[in-house]
Amino acid sequence: MPSPSWSLDLRALAARYRSGEATPAGVVAEVYERISRYADPAVWIHLLPMERVLEGAHTLAGRDPAGLPLYGVPFAVKDNLDLAGVPTTAGCPGFAYGPEKTAPVVERLMAAGAIPVGKTNLDQFATGLVGTRTPYGVCRNPFDRRYLPGGSSAGSAVAVAAGLVSFALGTDTAGSGRVPAAFTNTVGLKPTRGLLSTRGLVPAVRSLDCVSIFALTCEDAGAVLSVAAGFDPDDPFSRRAPAVETPSFDRLRVGVPETDYLEFFGDRAAQGRYRAALARLEALGCELITIDFGPFADTARMLYGGPWVAERLAAVGDFLEREPESVHPVVYEIIAGGARYDAVSAYKAAYRLAGLRRLSEGQWQQMDVLALPTTGTIYTVAEVERDPIALNANLGLYTNFVNLLDLCALAVPSGPGKAGLPTGITFVAPAWQETLLCRLGGVFHPWPGATLGATGHPVPVPEPMADPADRGIQLAVVGAHLSGQPLNHQLTDLGGALVRACRTAAHYRLFALVGEKVPKPGLVRTDDGNGAAIELEVWKLSAEGFGRFVANIPPPLGIGTLLLEDGEQVKGFLCESYAVAGAPDITGFGGWRAYLAANGSSAGIAHG
Amino acid sequence: MPSPSWSLDLRALAARYRSGEATPAGVVAEVYERISRYADPAVWIHLLPMERVLEGAHTLAGRDPAGLPLYGVPFAVKDNLDLAGVPTTAGCPGFAYGPEKTAPVVERLMAAGAIPVGKTNLDQFATGLVGTRTPYGVCRNPFDRRYLPGGSSAGSAVAVAAGLVSFALGTDTAGSGRVPAAFTNTVGLKPTRGLLSTRGLVPAVRSLDCVSIFALTCEDAGAVLSVAAGFDPDDPFSRRAPAVETPSFDRLRVGVPETDYLEFFGDRAAQGRYRAALARLEALGCELITIDFGPFADTARMLYGGPWVAERLAAVGDFLEREPESVHPVVYEIIAGGARYDAVSAYKAAYRLAGLRRLSEGQWQQMDVLALPTTGTIYTVAEVERDPIALNANLGLYTNFVNLLDLCALAVPSGPGKAGLPTGITFVAPAWQETLLCRLGGVFHPWPGATLGATGHPVPVPEPMADPADRGIQLAVVGAHLSGQPLNHQLTDLGGALVRACRTAAHYRLFALVGEKVPKPGLVRTDDGNGAAIELEVWKLSAEGFGRFVANIPPPLGIGTLLLEDGEQVKGFLCESYAVAGAPDITGFGGWRAYLAANGSSAGIAHG
Repeated sequence: MPSPSWSLDLRALAARYRSGEATPAGVVAEVYERISRYADPAVWIHLLPMERVLEGAHTLAGRDPAGLPLYGVPFAVKDNLDLAGVPTTAGCPGFAYGPEKTAPVVERLMAAGAIPVGKTNLDQFATGLVGTRTPYGVCRNPFDRRYLPGGSSAGSAVAVAAGLVSFALGTDTAGSGRVPAAFTNTVGLKPTRGLLSTRGLVPAVRSLDCVSIFALTCEDAGAVLSVAAGFDPDDPFSRRAPAVETPSFDRLRVGVPETDYLEFFGDRAAQGRYRAALARLEALGCELITIDFGPFADTARMLYGGPWVAERLAAVGDFLEREPESVHPVVYEIIAGGARYDAVSAYKAAYRLAGLRRLSEGQWQQMDVLALPTTGTIYTVAEVERDPIALNANLGLYTNFVNLLDLCALAVPSGPGKAGLPTGITFVAPAWQETLLCRLGGVFHPWPGATLGATGHPVPVPEPMADPADRGIQLAVVGAHLSGQPLNHQLTDLGGALVRACRTAAHYRLFALVGEKVPKPGLVRTDDGNGAAIELEVWKLSAEGFGRFVANIPPPLGIGTLLLEDGEQVKGFLCESYAVAGAPDITGFGGWRAYLAANGSSAGIAHG
Repeated sequence: MPSPSWSLDLRALAARYRSGEATPAGVVAEVYERISRYADPAVWIHLLPMERVLEGAHTLAGRDPAGLPLYGVPFAVKDNLDLAGVPTTAGCPGFAYGPEKTAPVVERLMAAGAIPVGKTNLDQFATGLVGTRTPYGVCRNPFDRRYLPGGSSAGSAVAVAAGLVSFALGTDTAGSGRVPAAFTNTVGLKPTRGLLSTRGLVPAVRSLDCVSIFALTCEDAGAVLSVAAGFDPDDPFSRRAPAVETPSFDRLRVGVPETDYLEFFGDRAAQGRYRAALARLEALGCELITIDFGPFADTARMLYGGPWVAERLAAVGDFLEREPESVHPVVYEIIAGGARYDAVSAYKAAYRLAGLRRLSEGQWQQMDVLALPTTGTIYTVAEVERDPIALNANLGLYTNFVNLLDLCALAVPSGPGKAGLPTGITFVAPAWQETLLCRLGGVFHPWPGATLGATGHPVPVPEPMADPADRGIQLAVVGAHLSGQPLNHQLTDLGGALVRACRTAAHYRLFALVGEKVPKPGLVRTDDGNGAAIELEVWKLSAEGFGRFVANIPPPLGIGTLLLEDGEQVKGFLCESYAVAGAPDITGFGGWRAYLAANGSSAGIAHG
């Protein structure tokens, strides 16, 4: 299949719109041209009529792209999500219904200017990680048609990999948003449960289902996420995203399982790729930490081997009973198995999960991100047809625990493996850490020779992303709060982190305050030309931590704005001027530490 | 039964210790004397040997009470919580085991100086709201022995009501910590799920079980809570309490169900008491809001009529199978009923609950607290023996939804009802709002003639409790952030609330800053005797809001500590002294508003 001549990644597409090279209608026409050229009709279950899509594109052309973050971006929707006017099949013709409303998550994307072009093939009822459990034909791996596309979001992943759309929505309960990304050389973002509305989604395991995003780059996945995410009061499983701190990107702690837990099912190429990926992370400045993968592995086993399959039965059990012959035999066997669990076993499994979650929390103390192979290996369609359940389960080894433990994950291509097929690495993080994942993924993705999906286009090196420190507040300290000084713990107790040591602009005078229990200096700004540069440290706190810290500062100290020697302004300690009348002026020392050193231990007594 | 001569409430007891009137050993001896005099042995399942308890009391006497918030406070423990060295029966002799470790929640109380004296009677396996489902004898209502004590924490409530101990631990899944409080004229606090460790507790419905507190006063319940609460990493259901805002106590919004939802089972006295309680709340300054009780009532019905009973079977099903004859017949019938639920029904109920929780959230937008009768009525032991399951269910009408919806609740005596027996009102609030509950309860409790439990001692009028602003940070503003001024929205946008308007101490000078876009004053402290009192407003912000606010203050302003005219110190706006050199001194106006008024609209131009 010929590679498309230009990439549909968001940055490339926006550049074409900006330069006037492209119009939404032109892009739609190009997309339909690419779809008709692409020799695998099994990608789609329903393609929207081009005329209807073109109409929408023409309407869009009259609007200001500045207000539309996804202006003219073509995308695909997995066929278990509702799009008004097109049947939702969930991969089962007998189950199909005509939705009146578009799923809110799809609506959000459309409202931002994105253009849906069709509904994609999937493992029926999103039950599978293979992509072959569908009566709509098996859509093929774009790198080698003998191999699995991965599932259940098979069509969505292939549509992106083949350059037919810029991004696609999938869903992810066990790993359906990540396994197909690994197999198609695309990026697969599985957001935190509840971050994207699941209204208008045919449930698989309703308490765990997530809408997921396939994209060509990590930056694109993040950009789509920021539009798609949002609280939905009419979805009982929707959650309000809390403000979180993104961990420091300097020396990011990346957890890696002990070798005993790593299983590649004999695929030495995959094993080598994973090792190489870890080496790349180290070279990028990450610190690799060996963690106890036990709680994660035990949880993963519970998903397929525990009562949660009864949720699938809760979702489509009535249909299975009514039209058993309409259901894919492997899917039927799996879902019907949910009937063997009683409520006692469901609650006992919930208790066990609560215990494993607590154990896993201990591991999260040691790492910021967990780095795993997305899958241990890849199989051919023929192999899976011979052993459909066991081989499918193998593919979920590194994905099945993520939703049960309330984590988020990003699958990123990690280079060619067996038979030149793609492999993937998955970064897993605690709930709500999508920004960290996309940022890390963006740095990792452009390995030498990396290409976007199956398009042959090189992976662009990401522009520096917004600093994660955005979510914190910087605070300059000049005295007893400096590292090693007696009140420094007040910063660390509140989760503070040292950002840098530097000096003020030459506009300040420093005084040794008199009568303080803990000796402290007072910094006062002067604009009379007699100021000096004073040594300080800049720390970072959360807004809440900063608030608590400021609330506890006793007079005559307070927090104002300090001018630094490099011209930057940060919040920092100042002293009310009334309190320095009569206090020794120690400006000449250039800083509190130098003053203490010169005055030896007597400083504590003199001002104690 | 004679009333004890002095009250064991925490304030009275602490006063006796402070004055030297009492020693821990003396109090222990008095407690055992009271227990032996109290003519209902069914309160206790196991009483600790007095010698052992006295030994502990003697050890305690050598320690500093200042460091022990519950110094020498005698308490009782419901016999489904472990106390090392005493069997745990859960109300079932055949089930009894000898725990090696004391439950962490009990340990925390002991570490704070509290003295456990025994294990109390309960509805077997905490299955009941009546207190009669026990082979250890039915402990009687202290006001009229024909009536129920309430359950399941029957003995704990009676021990407190009778003045045998200062407080008692109970547990509460459906209402076991609240119904007995209503029936015994005591206070029953059902904390948020996970706030108190449930390790060392025989589970009832493990996902919902809470350890609860019975006390004589709301202040005591709060004091015990603050010791008992704490994250337990070894309890998978333990949760870290987040920082929360306590809603403003001025015009607290109290939700009340529509009359259609109120059912008193023909008990007109109870109905009258509830009306009177609402009138009292209004008189206390609360705003009564009629809310839709539908989601709460629907949830309440799900607890007894849904699959959660299978959790009871998960907890003790093996024992029931092994020793069916050991189990109380009514309890057996209920718990065995858990077997009829399959996993599908458990998950479907969880989905329905998620939907009802979302609906209830809508109601919480309109109210701070929900005020309900604790029970619709009270029954005699004989009535319940004739119809044990239906009458028990009636008692849970206003309690059963609380844990399912992740709320906390406080049952407070509301005055004599049928046959002179106590009635109760329950305040329900969102998770983590225990401070609000105890504060509201403390204000409500001392109605005219109110007495502590069955002791006859009057309910003390609470000392003003710690201001709810404790969880917020107060901030004094003197200029453009005053109400009605152009930057005031920065406070309200962050959820700020006006606390009061007052003046600084006479130590400040006020300047009109030059060159500001929005005209602003600069407040500078002076200790040279030339200061004046300056008008200001004190606002309250959350720690996070305060942090964000401070982070956005431009130089030369900052936040320090202001001394107010009444001697209080609050955080507030200060100005760096360098910036007021040459600025007009407007101290003589006494405040920014007076200065603006005197300068008319020209102020905006002069400094704009």
